[in-house]
Amino acid sequence: MGKGCMIVCDGNNGAGKTTVIREIEKQLLAAGKKVLVTREPGGTPIGEKIREVVLSPETPELCPTTELMLFAAARAQHLKEKICPAIEAGTIVVCDRFTPATIAFQHYGRGIPLDLVRTINDLALDGFSPDLNIILDVDPVIGMARVTSRGEGLDRMEQEKLDFLVRARDGFLVQAQESPENFTVVDSSQPLEDVIAQVSLAVQALLNRIG
Amino acid sequence: MGKGCMIVCDGNNGAGKTTVIREIEKQLLAAGKKVLVTREPGGTPIGEKIREVVLSPETPELCPTTELMLFAAARAQHLKEKICPAIEAGTIVVCDRFTPATIAFQHYGRGIPLDLVRTINDLALDGFSPDLNIILDVDPVIGMARVTSRGEGLDRMEQEKLDFLVRARDGFLVQAQESPENFTVVDSSQPLEDVIAQVSLAVQALLNRIG
Repeated sequence: MGKGCMIVCDGNNGAGKTTVIREIEKQLLAAGKKVLVTREPGGTPIGEKIREVVLSPETPELCPTTELMLFAAARAQHLKEKICPAIEAGTIVVCDRFTPATIAFQHYGRGIPLDLVRTINDLALDGFSPDLNIILDVDPVIGMARVTSRGEGLDRMEQEKLDFLVRARDGFLVQAQESPENFTVVDSSQPLEDVIAQVSLAVQALLNRIG
Repeated sequence: MGKGCMIVCDGNNGAGKTTVIREIEKQLLAAGKKVLVTREPGGTPIGEKIREVVLSPETPELCPTTELMLFAAARAQHLKEKICPAIEAGTIVVCDRFTPATIAFQHYGRGIPLDLVRTINDLALDGFSPDLNIILDVDPVIGMARVTSRGEGLDRMEQEKLDFLVRARDGFLVQAQESPENFTVVDSSQPLEDVIAQVSLAVQALLNRIG
């Protein structure tokens, strides 16, 4: 049995997370690994109920502290019920969004002081941290255009204005600069095959590292 | 216009909160006050959605940190959207459960360290504190019997075992002992008219104090 670990794929909406995660999953399965793909907010029955509250376009008046605590509540449940048991069982967990999004959106985007965001996050994490955070970096104008072109309704976070998304993008990049040992930034405006090649290299390096 | 303030009515289930709150409301209206009766978790459309998640008997596996954060998320929204604006407009807010329940159930009941419960609570409160906390004290055996005799289904918190409720009762009493200036404990095993008379005295003392 291989060792379990956690890979996060994060970044602004429209950065291509879904496609990239599908490719990571294929690559890991081909290498004979056990894989669990999950997402935040959500990932558990309780988390998905919280997701409905926090992403519903019908709750535009959600206050920033409430939003922060809902994301953290879903995360605590996700870790305890799903992520940690999977990792212990030797599974590689691949998660669509995680703590990088909370720092980027709730601190850099909403302006909640960083120490408050960290305090709440740390309570939810209870000492846990992902092994690799892949940040798909995209110009928010391009990201928004991709999201809109899907022709689906926009969730509450996707309805945010450009300046919010610009601040969030900076937030993702600052986190990566501060922790280069477990962050990889990939320019997602490149052709898809180049994005995937870079992501694959980072995943392979992680697998080599954990053995 | 009179000054606004907040009165909390708290205690274990079956202590008679609903009846007492109705009496407080009558008394305040008779005194010409503007009154808003509300409850936690809940009180706002978002809070009521959170209430569904946190009290549903279908989510027995809710982890303690998640539960704590959900109560706090609902509280932050409640304060910002409903309680604080009402108090500013000169209304007396009467709330069924508030921070005393969080300390009693999540710390004394669940065993989450007090500093964690306080940290999360304080973030939700953002400097706010109720003017009067009325604790209806009841032997948990009597409280459980009253709740069961209602013949309604029990919510997730009402399904807790006796030892949990005994610890929570102690938690309510310790809080009152520590802050006698804004807590009043009323023995709710007394005849209802005596309970109401004692509560009325406490409410009147508050009104005299705030002018």
